[in-house]
Amino acid sequence: MDDRPALAPDQLPPLAPDAPDIAQIEQAAERIRGEAVVTPLLEVPAANALLGGRLLMKPEMLQRTGSFKFRGAYNCIAALAPEVRRRGVVTYSSGNHAQGVAAAAQALDVPALIVMPQDAPAIKVENTRGYGAEVVFYDRYTESREEIGERLAAERGATIVRPYDEPGVIAGQGTAGLEIAWQAAAKGVTLDAVLVPAGGGGLVAGISTAIAARSPGTPVYCCEPAGFDDTTRSLIAGAWIENDPAARSFCDALLAPTPGRITFTINIRRLTGGLVVSDAEVAEAMRFAFRHFKVVVEPGGAVALAAVIAGRLPIAGKTFAVVCSGGNVDPAVFREVLAGG
Amino acid sequence: MDDRPALAPDQLPPLAPDAPDIAQIEQAAERIRGEAVVTPLLEVPAANALLGGRLLMKPEMLQRTGSFKFRGAYNCIAALAPEVRRRGVVTYSSGNHAQGVAAAAQALDVPALIVMPQDAPAIKVENTRGYGAEVVFYDRYTESREEIGERLAAERGATIVRPYDEPGVIAGQGTAGLEIAWQAAAKGVTLDAVLVPAGGGGLVAGISTAIAARSPGTPVYCCEPAGFDDTTRSLIAGAWIENDPAARSFCDALLAPTPGRITFTINIRRLTGGLVVSDAEVAEAMRFAFRHFKVVVEPGGAVALAAVIAGRLPIAGKTFAVVCSGGNVDPAVFREVLAGG
Repeated sequence: MDDRPALAPDQLPPLAPDAPDIAQIEQAAERIRGEAVVTPLLEVPAANALLGGRLLMKPEMLQRTGSFKFRGAYNCIAALAPEVRRRGVVTYSSGNHAQGVAAAAQALDVPALIVMPQDAPAIKVENTRGYGAEVVFYDRYTESREEIGERLAAERGATIVRPYDEPGVIAGQGTAGLEIAWQAAAKGVTLDAVLVPAGGGGLVAGISTAIAARSPGTPVYCCEPAGFDDTTRSLIAGAWIENDPAARSFCDALLAPTPGRITFTINIRRLTGGLVVSDAEVAEAMRFAFRHFKVVVEPGGAVALAAVIAGRLPIAGKTFAVVCSGGNVDPAVFREVLAGG
Repeated sequence: MDDRPALAPDQLPPLAPDAPDIAQIEQAAERIRGEAVVTPLLEVPAANALLGGRLLMKPEMLQRTGSFKFRGAYNCIAALAPEVRRRGVVTYSSGNHAQGVAAAAQALDVPALIVMPQDAPAIKVENTRGYGAEVVFYDRYTESREEIGERLAAERGATIVRPYDEPGVIAGQGTAGLEIAWQAAAKGVTLDAVLVPAGGGGLVAGISTAIAARSPGTPVYCCEPAGFDDTTRSLIAGAWIENDPAARSFCDALLAPTPGRITFTINIRRLTGGLVVSDAEVAEAMRFAFRHFKVVVEPGGAVALAAVIAGRLPIAGKTFAVVCSGGNVDPAVFREVLAGG
């Protein structure tokens, strides 16, 4: 997105005062040490040969709970004072953040209540309960999950752990960026770009803050499914843009309606741009990861890889780090994707 | 297999004089450093909770070429003198060893010729050629691949890199055992058992040699598909036993007819026993790896995991390291396995 209009600093929305900085990301790395997986930076020569460049994959499906979400959730909950922790945490999510919070709360022996839509996939409800969390359902067409979460949290004196617009969550997700920077340095490579999936933008906000500090000059891009390219369009507009409510994508992890209050004010300063891919390109990327990397990537987790394979940002002769952010995909969906090859 | 009859040392077949020792495995680790992937030791708390014990997975599908075979192939070829290397290498294999040798030869700029059955899956032929190797076909019902390989090697002055009965290959595979030992130590755990898939027995021979030196007292088991339990039965008999030629399994990587000349003389000294699983149990293990570990395991790569899930060796309250040896599975087979869940 080299055609992004340059906005003067005074034209940008002001940086949210609670946006985390590199010091908070480093604190997060200390907190999650030994609890979160330091996922490797995978490289497959045969895939490089096909692409004509070096593709370094950060495989967050290997993270605890099968997505990066455990990083931010654990960091948030571990930072709470003991007497606050004891009253528990509340969040709302139909998917990966629910599992991340449930597992982090369980690891820290904190009660967790998750507000999930009535029509959430049974497997995600089951996994969330499997981590010991209490699940409360809501009707996504008539009720507001935020309101329900806030009411329940107030009743219990519990703390809300928002999916992305939460400083501790953004800092926790940023630890993946710290790892990318030192793992690339350990390989002796200079990164030409870092590509990151974006829903609400918490992961890319954290990673871009870490990369700016630890690999300065490396451009960071957010990647989104077509129809849910709210961050890409908001970056161009310099203001919050909403997705068309009629938009549909099978990237269920990336369906946030608009960029986050905090995350967007970080991303508009840190990101070089946004890249948008179709569901068909995402499916192709999932097959590519299956064939060459032998890992399971869920649709929303594959958008950055899809952007590279589809040539949205030419990799020829360059070295890119690509975050594959999760692997929580139903077997039936994965079978259908494999059948499409 | 605690019912294995104790054989007196003088009843055992003598150790092959060319069996590699721990020093050769350490040399191999030096040779492959920076070329092979140091695969992580993965642990998923939710999987542990289901099993009631700690399961540490060594995910060799993340290894270069999608299986452990790159380790042994690279070690073997890298050890050849420059003037020998120049004349090339020859091997015979329909699958993972073919890809391992082709990729290692390519990395070392050595010509490779692979003898493959006419009916090898197109994808494996394509991958092997993709690594720059020359492929020669044979008819597996009327011709001997060993004879063809030896003739072609003699004609070219090339070196044969046998799939498992090759000291440099066994030593290379043993590097996975060195990694398991230090990675478990880094986690502060003592391993109660190490479970390893076995075809010709090269991987388990190398790993058991490394474990005996670096985690002494930890029992090592080979795991095999029913009908191809030649190593398990040979361990009991104290002599080489052949599989019934009519046996069938979808574990295509593990169909060797009988234990190797060298490998068996190592395994009968090092292994505590063998564990045998059905194809249905293997499919269940592949689904378990998909769901909990988010990795793609091929049938032959999943037999050790299957042995744990099926309870062949009770994991309750214990810590096992399980090698998942490869992930080179056709999408159609993987789809069928997922559908069976």
